[in-house]
Amino acid sequence: MMLVNGQWQDSVSALDRGLSYGDGLFETIRMVGAQAPLWERHMQRLAAGCVRLRMPAPDPQQLWREVQQVSAALPDAVVRVTLTRGTGERGYAPPKTSSMTRIVAAFPAPMIPAAFYRDGIRTRLCTTTLADQPLLAGIKHLNRLEQVLARAEWDDPLITEGLVCDQHGQVISATAANLFAVIDGVLLTPSVERCGVAGVARAAVIQAHAACEIRDLPLTECLRASELFLSSSVRGILPVQAVGDTVYAPGPVTRAMQRYWCELGFSMEQA
Amino acid sequence: MMLVNGQWQDSVSALDRGLSYGDGLFETIRMVGAQAPLWERHMQRLAAGCVRLRMPAPDPQQLWREVQQVSAALPDAVVRVTLTRGTGERGYAPPKTSSMTRIVAAFPAPMIPAAFYRDGIRTRLCTTTLADQPLLAGIKHLNRLEQVLARAEWDDPLITEGLVCDQHGQVISATAANLFAVIDGVLLTPSVERCGVAGVARAAVIQAHAACEIRDLPLTECLRASELFLSSSVRGILPVQAVGDTVYAPGPVTRAMQRYWCELGFSMEQA
Repeated sequence: MMLVNGQWQDSVSALDRGLSYGDGLFETIRMVGAQAPLWERHMQRLAAGCVRLRMPAPDPQQLWREVQQVSAALPDAVVRVTLTRGTGERGYAPPKTSSMTRIVAAFPAPMIPAAFYRDGIRTRLCTTTLADQPLLAGIKHLNRLEQVLARAEWDDPLITEGLVCDQHGQVISATAANLFAVIDGVLLTPSVERCGVAGVARAAVIQAHAACEIRDLPLTECLRASELFLSSSVRGILPVQAVGDTVYAPGPVTRAMQRYWCELGFSMEQA
Repeated sequence: MMLVNGQWQDSVSALDRGLSYGDGLFETIRMVGAQAPLWERHMQRLAAGCVRLRMPAPDPQQLWREVQQVSAALPDAVVRVTLTRGTGERGYAPPKTSSMTRIVAAFPAPMIPAAFYRDGIRTRLCTTTLADQPLLAGIKHLNRLEQVLARAEWDDPLITEGLVCDQHGQVISATAANLFAVIDGVLLTPSVERCGVAGVARAAVIQAHAACEIRDLPLTECLRASELFLSSSVRGILPVQAVGDTVYAPGPVTRAMQRYWCELGFSMEQA
């Protein structure tokens, strides 16, 4: 089910700037029935992205109504909201009077094996590295070729995610989730000031764990963590069982975050 | 006029990966009547981009037929060819069996004042800098937010282009054209191994001027050039009259390249 600018349709102009240049933003929102526990955070990030890309901010109430409409028939939905700068003249210059394109589409939530939450997932280290671009770091824009290339590095179904570094040997995130590590008893997550996406699930974890440090995380340091887990608005808190040949076990901080995720209203990941 | 996968239509699926992730490539081709003087170079770059993004290469003959169809009614057209990885499941992983989306759209060529070719254009220095990403440098992919941000820095109609540097103080290009400089009597153009687009017009200039050097070009060095010009498949050879307050005059190398452009078959820029 999909709405484009409030109309039931499944296509957009082939001249949309979202397609021509990736000129836009998106959010991927996990629903729990008719609720979206992280809704406010999604709307905050979307608004921040609009400021960064100098696009008019959307109306959250209108978006919420459309999210409800498209997901009404799905008991367990993921809704993607895409905002683009709309259509315009050919060329990079943003049109002076553009009307945004607003796509709200619902999908069935992915089936995630219970073992992933209980025992953790296997990951690999990607050779694709992320470029430093502070102008675009943090926001969830439509220029995602780095993530596509990183995810295309493997098709072994036993590998669920890939960790991605920047070009200085610092781990940034997984291809579609943020990363947390417990090192010397301290929870920390990589900075996303230069690259990476500031996930809404990441923000929820940071807020729930007041002592969480946000800083650069060299890969070598990351690999000696006592716990590693991923945060994702769609998949929740996923313990990391292995990065390549290095193995980990879900520990107390990971378990506490999984319990917190249930308290937020998500039900898919009872550990 | 527009063909999408060979059909006369002007829309694409709202789930196209070109829109979702910028997962694709494009070419912007200047026609001279029914001819495209730089066609072979466009097809070479498109094929190289497909290899880089691991997408199947298109059929150049099919594209050529479609370019002819969409531009037939326009005496002076610019045709944009866009190739995306098509639609797929939600998520970054490229679909195992994807059929590409192929958009071929014709536009009237832009009206460019004769004075631009005669006297040059005014440019500014953009504050937006380009990120180093060798995996994507050179190809003309759909992740163009850096160019959009750079082009959004000004709306003074007297400023035609903006020069963009990387994050190390090297000039790379204009927002939508490549840059050439004559320094100490030597023609040179910045390397696009780390960022920037390897323009087809740039390739034609390099081939025509055997002694052209391709290397890093510090901004400070660039600004003391005796000649500066831009190359663009759409706009041809544009002398740079000013970068901010620093002024230049079209010189003999620029004029020779403009004459060469006419020899290639382009008629729009008799200097």
